[in-house]
Amino acid sequence: MALESSRGSLSTPLCDLLGVRYPVIQAPMAGGWTTPELVSAVSSAGGFGCLAGAGVPPGRLREEIRAVKEQTDRPFGVNFQLALPGPGSRDVAAAQRFLDGFRERFGLPSGETELEPPSFSLEEQFEVVFEERAPVLSLGLGDPGDLVERAHGEGILVAFMVTTVEDAVRVAEGGVDVVVAQGAEAGGHRSTLGPGREAPLVGTMALVPQVVDAVGVPVVAAGGISDGRGLVAALALGAAGVQMGTRFLLARESGAHPAYRRRLLAATEEDTVVTCVFTGRPARVLRNRFVEEYLGAGSEPLAWPLQRAAAGDIYRASQAADDGDYSPLLAGQGLRMLEEDGQGAAGIVEEVVAVAGAVLSRLAAS
Amino acid sequence: MALESSRGSLSTPLCDLLGVRYPVIQAPMAGGWTTPELVSAVSSAGGFGCLAGAGVPPGRLREEIRAVKEQTDRPFGVNFQLALPGPGSRDVAAAQRFLDGFRERFGLPSGETELEPPSFSLEEQFEVVFEERAPVLSLGLGDPGDLVERAHGEGILVAFMVTTVEDAVRVAEGGVDVVVAQGAEAGGHRSTLGPGREAPLVGTMALVPQVVDAVGVPVVAAGGISDGRGLVAALALGAAGVQMGTRFLLARESGAHPAYRRRLLAATEEDTVVTCVFTGRPARVLRNRFVEEYLGAGSEPLAWPLQRAAAGDIYRASQAADDGDYSPLLAGQGLRMLEEDGQGAAGIVEEVVAVAGAVLSRLAAS
Repeated sequence: MALESSRGSLSTPLCDLLGVRYPVIQAPMAGGWTTPELVSAVSSAGGFGCLAGAGVPPGRLREEIRAVKEQTDRPFGVNFQLALPGPGSRDVAAAQRFLDGFRERFGLPSGETELEPPSFSLEEQFEVVFEERAPVLSLGLGDPGDLVERAHGEGILVAFMVTTVEDAVRVAEGGVDVVVAQGAEAGGHRSTLGPGREAPLVGTMALVPQVVDAVGVPVVAAGGISDGRGLVAALALGAAGVQMGTRFLLARESGAHPAYRRRLLAATEEDTVVTCVFTGRPARVLRNRFVEEYLGAGSEPLAWPLQRAAAGDIYRASQAADDGDYSPLLAGQGLRMLEEDGQGAAGIVEEVVAVAGAVLSRLAAS
Repeated sequence: MALESSRGSLSTPLCDLLGVRYPVIQAPMAGGWTTPELVSAVSSAGGFGCLAGAGVPPGRLREEIRAVKEQTDRPFGVNFQLALPGPGSRDVAAAQRFLDGFRERFGLPSGETELEPPSFSLEEQFEVVFEERAPVLSLGLGDPGDLVERAHGEGILVAFMVTTVEDAVRVAEGGVDVVVAQGAEAGGHRSTLGPGREAPLVGTMALVPQVVDAVGVPVVAAGGISDGRGLVAALALGAAGVQMGTRFLLARESGAHPAYRRRLLAATEEDTVVTCVFTGRPARVLRNRFVEEYLGAGSEPLAWPLQRAAAGDIYRASQAADDGDYSPLLAGQGLRMLEEDGQGAAGIVEEVVAVAGAVLSRLAAS
């Protein structure tokens, strides 16, 4: 039946724009989780994979982009966080005294009070993306400035993530090709244009249609979407696709360590919190001991980007020890919908699409 | 075409259970807004209207129920808030000293430090519902105890609003007929079973499918839904209907005063906050001067139900003066979707259903 097969296609203007089969974007998640294997598997399956470029040195970024290209001929994206130094404490010595309490557990030496600046710039990272001709630049957490124009000059599309209608309008006026509407449910950093530590938390159900009404480009819904039901819900709200992060963390190809995966599978919708304690900017994470001890002590995290620089050795030690308590475990609120660890990323894309098709059939029959 | 007309019906198990044509519930909103005219207009139009019984003396409640019945022969509900005295300050004198600052603006005398207990009990209110045989008892904000069983004994269905999967499972095991899943976007009180001032804020997009997966009764989605797009999105997530509050505040038949309506129409998705300052329990409201001054001063509101009792004279004076700054203006986050003041409630129901039908057609053609 033609209607049925057409319905199963789920094609939207986003698919035409990005050149993908399904309107399913794998969210870029900084921290080492979005391996080239994950990104290429999502793209090869007809979705849209996205590397997280944040904090990745230019040389390694180039290798990762090339690795994706070797494994797929389908489009993919590379994401960056544009945030400039933000408000908050700059008393590194005081912060390190508090953080030293965590270091004892891992036998780490006391924290440095003179933080090393990053050994590379965002500009150098962009150059890699332009030189390697990654198809899409995915941005958030700050003002894009002239970056949209420059990307367009290189023949590269730009997707931008926002949390409010006002920011959506601003980036759409700035020429971005895709607006990602990040609802309050979403894991990871709140993608605000401004430097504020008080991030607006507008739920996906409310945010998406209001953004759709305000901008003329395809809108992607992000936040709380973990399966095909969420994909159809997003399309009903007027979105042209979805961005899913947490679900892809459990993919076989993701870089998430075992303890992170176990925490995700054990967690419920009540187990996350939006906090600045890991990086100095608000992000939704699983509550773990690091969060609880910071909140319990009422200790103020350093301003972005100092907090991550100050505490990075702790996060690395915690991850190396496959410990879930002293590193950021970014996660959205759709946690009970996670059922399986180690599913292939292609299988996730196919399952989301299949369930969405079944939901459309159910709705048509209602 | 059969498919088209069937698709337009939007019939769900909730419709069969409640005996209504469309799965659109008008949220009960305490404060005098859900007039019998509003409730009966919604029900007559094929939706499900709901009186707010909270704080309404038994005699007046009886009159309101009878007024609804005179104006419609369709099913409707009556809602109550079950909250017991909760945590928080009990220093009424200190609270009144702070509140006296607001009283000066309205020429009110200093606040009473001996608060009058309510002149009637919840039990007396339930008796009215049972005697008048209102078809549905709608509940939230506390433990239902044996109330579900008693209502069933009277032939009355029970709907219960929750904010977490755990609470949903608990009330479903307690026999409720309908679970309303209240996402973080929703206006009004957070409907938690426990007394906590820290209410979970799980977005509608994430909460609804997780509740659907956990309970066997029809689930109604609430929070951030203002039009037919949200209705279809909720159905896609597995809900059997939606509950809409804020949109119905602007209905011609609602009791919302002009200043409240103007604030709703002027507000954006960023203009609400979840706060205890009006009643002692967390509720999502428009930020107005009362909220800003409380938050700015860091003054602690009294425990539920003392705060509302202590400040009630201020709220009444503010409303009587058609002022929007010193009374609770409950509102959800779907605010930019509000376009028209004074639309008839029947027109709202019909428009939501018509748009939902168009969305279903669009999805089927995609």
